[in-house]
Amino acid sequence: MSTTTIDKNQMTEQLFGAVRETNQTQIEQLSAHFVAEELAEMLESSPPKERSILWKGIPTDKQGEVLAHLNDEVRANLLGELETHEIIEITEELPIDDIVDIAQSLEGHEQKEFVASLDDSNREAVQLAMTYGDDTAGGLMSPDFISVRADVSLGVVLRYLRQLGDLPPSTTALLVRDRDDHYVGCLQLRYLLTHDEDCEVHEFVDQAVPAVNVYTSTKDVAHLFEKQDLIFAPVVDDQNTILGRITIDDVVDIIREEAEHRQMASAGLDEDEDIFAPASRAAKRRTFWLGINLLTAIFASIVIGFFDASIEKVVALAVLMPIIASMGGIAGTQTATIVIRALATGKLGKSNSRSLLIKESTVGLYNGFIWAIFTGLAVLVLFQDWQLSAIFATAMLINLVAAAFAGAMIPLILQRMQIDPALASGLMLTTVTDSLGFFVFLGLATIVLI
Amino acid sequence: MSTTTIDKNQMTEQLFGAVRETNQTQIEQLSAHFVAEELAEMLESSPPKERSILWKGIPTDKQGEVLAHLNDEVRANLLGELETHEIIEITEELPIDDIVDIAQSLEGHEQKEFVASLDDSNREAVQLAMTYGDDTAGGLMSPDFISVRADVSLGVVLRYLRQLGDLPPSTTALLVRDRDDHYVGCLQLRYLLTHDEDCEVHEFVDQAVPAVNVYTSTKDVAHLFEKQDLIFAPVVDDQNTILGRITIDDVVDIIREEAEHRQMASAGLDEDEDIFAPASRAAKRRTFWLGINLLTAIFASIVIGFFDASIEKVVALAVLMPIIASMGGIAGTQTATIVIRALATGKLGKSNSRSLLIKESTVGLYNGFIWAIFTGLAVLVLFQDWQLSAIFATAMLINLVAAAFAGAMIPLILQRMQIDPALASGLMLTTVTDSLGFFVFLGLATIVLI
Repeated sequence: MSTTTIDKNQMTEQLFGAVRETNQTQIEQLSAHFVAEELAEMLESSPPKERSILWKGIPTDKQGEVLAHLNDEVRANLLGELETHEIIEITEELPIDDIVDIAQSLEGHEQKEFVASLDDSNREAVQLAMTYGDDTAGGLMSPDFISVRADVSLGVVLRYLRQLGDLPPSTTALLVRDRDDHYVGCLQLRYLLTHDEDCEVHEFVDQAVPAVNVYTSTKDVAHLFEKQDLIFAPVVDDQNTILGRITIDDVVDIIREEAEHRQMASAGLDEDEDIFAPASRAAKRRTFWLGINLLTAIFASIVIGFFDASIEKVVALAVLMPIIASMGGIAGTQTATIVIRALATGKLGKSNSRSLLIKESTVGLYNGFIWAIFTGLAVLVLFQDWQLSAIFATAMLINLVAAAFAGAMIPLILQRMQIDPALASGLMLTTVTDSLGFFVFLGLATIVLI
Repeated sequence: MSTTTIDKNQMTEQLFGAVRETNQTQIEQLSAHFVAEELAEMLESSPPKERSILWKGIPTDKQGEVLAHLNDEVRANLLGELETHEIIEITEELPIDDIVDIAQSLEGHEQKEFVASLDDSNREAVQLAMTYGDDTAGGLMSPDFISVRADVSLGVVLRYLRQLGDLPPSTTALLVRDRDDHYVGCLQLRYLLTHDEDCEVHEFVDQAVPAVNVYTSTKDVAHLFEKQDLIFAPVVDDQNTILGRITIDDVVDIIREEAEHRQMASAGLDEDEDIFAPASRAAKRRTFWLGINLLTAIFASIVIGFFDASIEKVVALAVLMPIIASMGGIAGTQTATIVIRALATGKLGKSNSRSLLIKESTVGLYNGFIWAIFTGLAVLVLFQDWQLSAIFATAMLINLVAAAFAGAMIPLILQRMQIDPALASGLMLTTVTDSLGFFVFLGLATIVLI
C-alpha cells in the first residue's frame, strides 16, 4: 500500500490545489481517482466556500454516491442548495438504502416531491423504510436480498442463481425460508461451491446468523453485529417473515458513532456536527451548554460566598481551594468515564454495579490517602502552619473519596432515570466535586482557624 | 428478535445466579447457550471472584474461543492462572489468528513453551505474525486464504474449490494472483455462481479491493476499511506477494477502540483497562494522572497567590473567580473535542487547520460577548458595583476567546509534535483557561479597584 498511499496523498494535495484555484476541469478529472467515501470526507473537511467549489466539480454521476456517504448535517446543507429535479437526477442510480437516507435528509414538500418522483417499486420501499424511522433496523436495511426454500436441492439453487445473472452487491450468503416464508437460517455461498448438487439446502443451513426484528434500534443492531462477529443479518417482521438484510458496512458507521457519542456528549456536542458549520450556528448550540455550566459554577461560587469572612482573614484559603476542587474533578471524571463506557457497552448492570461501586470507592480511598499526605506535607512546608496543613489534607481525602463515589453513582442513577449518562454526568459531577471541595475545606478552616 | 432477546436475558440472569451459588454443573449447561463473545463479555463484566468461578464452569472446548475474545488485560490475567499445558490444550482447535493473539498475551518462557508446542505449520505462522507485531496488518491477518490464477477459467476454479471441500470461514471472495504470485484483485464468490464456466477469471477481477502492506498499522487498516466499505482485504509484502487476509470482524474492534481511545485518554485511562482490576493496581495507574493534574492546579494557585493582597481587600474576587475559570474550561473543551476528533479521523490537516482556527475563534468571540454581557449584568445587580461588573465581563470575554483559540491550537501543536492530542490536550488546556482566567480577572481588579 505504501506506493498507492503516496500517490493518493499527492492527488489529494492536487485536488485541494484545484479547489483553491476554482479549476473545475481539473477537479472533475482528479475526483475520478477517488471513491465516493473519500470525496465525502474531503467535503466534510472543507470550509464552506471550498466545499461548494469541490461539490460542483464532482461529476454528476458520482454526486449521488457521495451524498450517500456524507454525515447528516453536511448532506442536509448540500441538499438545501439543490433543486428537487437535480436531486432526483443524481440519485437515480443509487441502491435503495442510499435513496432512503437521502429522502430522510429532505424536508417537507421537497421530500414529498422527491419520493413521488421514484418509480413504483423504489417508492414503496422508501415509504416503508421511512415509516420505520432511520434509527431502526427497518430504516437501515436494504430490501434487495435473495432467499431460497430449505427443501430444495443445491442444484436447483445454482440454476436459479445462474438465471438471475447477478447477485446484489456484498451478498455473502442466501437467506433460507420455510414453506411459510419464515426465516430459518442462511446458506453461505461457499457451501454452494464446495458441495454436491444433490444435497438439500437444509443440510447446510447456518443458524448462527440471527434475524433482527425490523423495529430493533440501530444501536442494538450494532451491538449484535459486534458481539456475534456478523457480516450481515436478515431483518424480519414480528411473524419472522424476511423483509430485508443489513450488511456490516452500514453498521460500522453506527459502531464508530456510538463510541464517539460519549466523548462528544460529555462536551455538550453532537457526533453528527459539521466541523465547518457557520460560527453563529455553532455558537448557538454551544452557548446552551455554557449556560448550564454557569449554573453549576454559580452554585460553587455561592458555597464560597458563605465563607467570605474566613477568606478575608486567611487569604491562603482562596489560594489553596482551587487545588482541592480540581483534584476532585479529575478523580471523579476518571471513575465516571469508566462507568459510562461500561454502561454503554452493556458491561454494567444490576448484578455487578455494587461491586464496581465498592472497587471505585476503594480506588478513591487509596488515591485520597496518597495525595492527602503528599499535599498536606507540601502545605506544611510552604505555609509553616500545621493546622492549615491538616485541614487541607483532610479536605483532599474527603473530596477524592466523594469524587470516586459520585463518579460511579451519578451515571448509574442517570441511566436508571433513562437520562443519557454521557451527556449529563460531567456537569453534575463537577457540581459535586467543586461545591463539596470548597465546602469541606472552607468549612473546616472556619471551625478550626477562625 | 424480541423473543430471543428475552430468553437470552433470562438465561444471563440464570447464569449469574449459578455463578453466585458456585453451581459448576449449571454454569456448564447454561454456557452452552452463549457464543464465545458473549461469555467473554460476561467475564469482563464480572468482579474477580465471580470471574474465576464462571471461567472454571465454561467447558474446556469453549474456553479457547472465549480467551480469543477477551480484552488484553483480562485475558493476560486468566492466562496467568493457567499452566502452559492447559493453555495448549484449550487453544488447540483455534484458528491461527486467535492462536497468535493468545501467544502475544503470554510472557517470557511461557510464550516460548507455548509456541514450541504448536505443530510445524502453525508455529511458523505464529512466529511470522509475532515478528510483525500486534499493531500491524501482519499481526492482524489470518494466513488461511484461497488464491487463484487470473488466466484460468471459472470452471477450473469451481473444480478446485470442490476438491478442497470447504473454504476458510468468512470467505466471501477469492484472491487473484498473476503468474508471479502478485496480487491483482479479487474474485467475488457470487460471480462464480452466476457466470459461465468457460469465462476466464481475469474478466471478473474486482480491483476495488486494495491490498494492504503487511507493515501497515492496524489504525490505518481500520481507516481503510471504513473509508472504502471493505469486508475483507488481502495483506501483501513489499513485492505485492499475498501473505494473508484481514476480515471486517477483526477490524470492527479496532474501529471501536480507536474511537473510544480519545475519551479514555482524556481522563488518563487506557481503553484496554479491566473494569474490575484490583483497586490497588487501578489506583496506581490513576494516581500518575492526578499527579500531573496537581502541577497544573498548583500553577493556577500560584497565579492567585500573586494577588492575595487584592483578595484580602475585595473578598468578592475569591467568590467570583472560579466562575470565569470554569466557563473558560468548558468552552475550550468543546473546541478541543471537535479538533481532536477531526485530527483522529484525518479530517483536519494543513489545508484546513487555519480555517478551523478562525471559525473556532469566531465561535469564542460570539459566546464571549453573550456571556460577558449576561454575567456582567448579573454581577452588577448582585454586587451594585459597576467597576467590578465591568472587570468581570472583560475577563469573561478574554477568557472565552482565549479558551476557543487554545482549544484549537493545543491539539494541533501536539499533533505536529507527535504527542497524542487526546492524552495531553485536556490538562494543558485547563492550565491555560484556569491560570489565564484568574490572572486576567485578578490582574484587572488589582489595577482598577485596589
